[in-house]
Amino acid sequence: MLLYDLVNARGAHFSPNSWRVRMALAHKQIGYQVEDLHFGQIESINPGGERLTIPTIEHEGQRVTDSWAIVQYLDQTFADQPALIGSGSAAQVLRFFQYWVQTTVHAGIIRLILRDLHDSLHPDDHAYFRASREKQFRKTLEEVQAGRDDRVGAFRESLRPMRMKLQESPFVGGEVPSYADYLAFGGFQWARLSSSYPLLAEDDPVYAWRERCLDLFNGLARQEPAAN
Amino acid sequence: MLLYDLVNARGAHFSPNSWRVRMALAHKQIGYQVEDLHFGQIESINPGGERLTIPTIEHEGQRVTDSWAIVQYLDQTFADQPALIGSGSAAQVLRFFQYWVQTTVHAGIIRLILRDLHDSLHPDDHAYFRASREKQFRKTLEEVQAGRDDRVGAFRESLRPMRMKLQESPFVGGEVPSYADYLAFGGFQWARLSSSYPLLAEDDPVYAWRERCLDLFNGLARQEPAAN
Repeated sequence: MLLYDLVNARGAHFSPNSWRVRMALAHKQIGYQVEDLHFGQIESINPGGERLTIPTIEHEGQRVTDSWAIVQYLDQTFADQPALIGSGSAAQVLRFFQYWVQTTVHAGIIRLILRDLHDSLHPDDHAYFRASREKQFRKTLEEVQAGRDDRVGAFRESLRPMRMKLQESPFVGGEVPSYADYLAFGGFQWARLSSSYPLLAEDDPVYAWRERCLDLFNGLARQEPAAN
Repeated sequence: MLLYDLVNARGAHFSPNSWRVRMALAHKQIGYQVEDLHFGQIESINPGGERLTIPTIEHEGQRVTDSWAIVQYLDQTFADQPALIGSGSAAQVLRFFQYWVQTTVHAGIIRLILRDLHDSLHPDDHAYFRASREKQFRKTLEEVQAGRDDRVGAFRESLRPMRMKLQESPFVGGEVPSYADYLAFGGFQWARLSSSYPLLAEDDPVYAWRERCLDLFNGLARQEPAAN
């Protein structure tokens, strides 16, 4: 099993969607190797072919791209272990949760740390990242991040349904972590590896949950060099 | 099976949390009787005892209150049919979804139709409703609802993760409705029975989904007299 993953200037694997897969692989106790790439090297995975995205895995001669498809592939291929996504309406509600993470967690975070994220990247990626993100936001990186102290409260407030869940159980999945936890954790791990900005208040149940996620699998996610 | 439920001046059963139970009962094909109450009559269910909330059901000599507890009771008592909440991490993610509905759908809707909701109630409930809600919001009903045309766009935008899910399947639960659909539908049914304000744009996938929910079980939810 090979995972193609992004690294930043500090060597940290910061991709939120890769962390979904990394936590899923650890959950299923599947060993793997990693091929480190910068944004500018992604094309080298599949030269002349369709541009793949990160994460992509390679296993027994096949490539699977997109975190959801990868975890479904793992569920099917390592079927002796409990499924993380599964099927039926449970998988569908999990898919809603992924969209909630995308539109609330990821979209909220990026507006608070976009310039920091740029600065954390390998210098070779700076020009690509600035051009692509400034086109997407129609603002400079600095304009997107400006005024974050006035906006972080609204971000924290937007996490309210997750906070309510975490007030009744240690993980979104209940007593033990589920794929919903890995979906949300990816966003927070991305943030802490890319920026030292304090996204969460220390007395927030979401903060305590993030600590619990960092402790999973012998502190797997703590092994990456965090921003300081 | 007896369901204690609220009615408004038009005789419509408008409680969002009761609609979760009504749809669950229909899904499980369980027949029931209804006892209609105004807010001021809720105490009469359990005189001198703990104040129950709506919905409450009575079945084989027991009373069960709170929509989540009721649906779990139905899952256990009518166990020959597929569970709507179930157990394990699927039930936990569904619980998150309920919190999302509460903090996004219900909390968004009430700020758009609070005065209309008051007006739709039986006159006997007007004073109680105004006093309790004005205390809760620390504003008059009229102040809460004011400026809604400027705010309805933000409400529609807040539904984005649900809209993304509905762009890939007809129901949140996939090809067929699940309890997640009934959780969200309760809020929209409450709104349409209490106010004629156009919450959703007609070209919104959420609008089409609401129509599909209204069509379920031979148009069960269309049988209530909607606001006009």
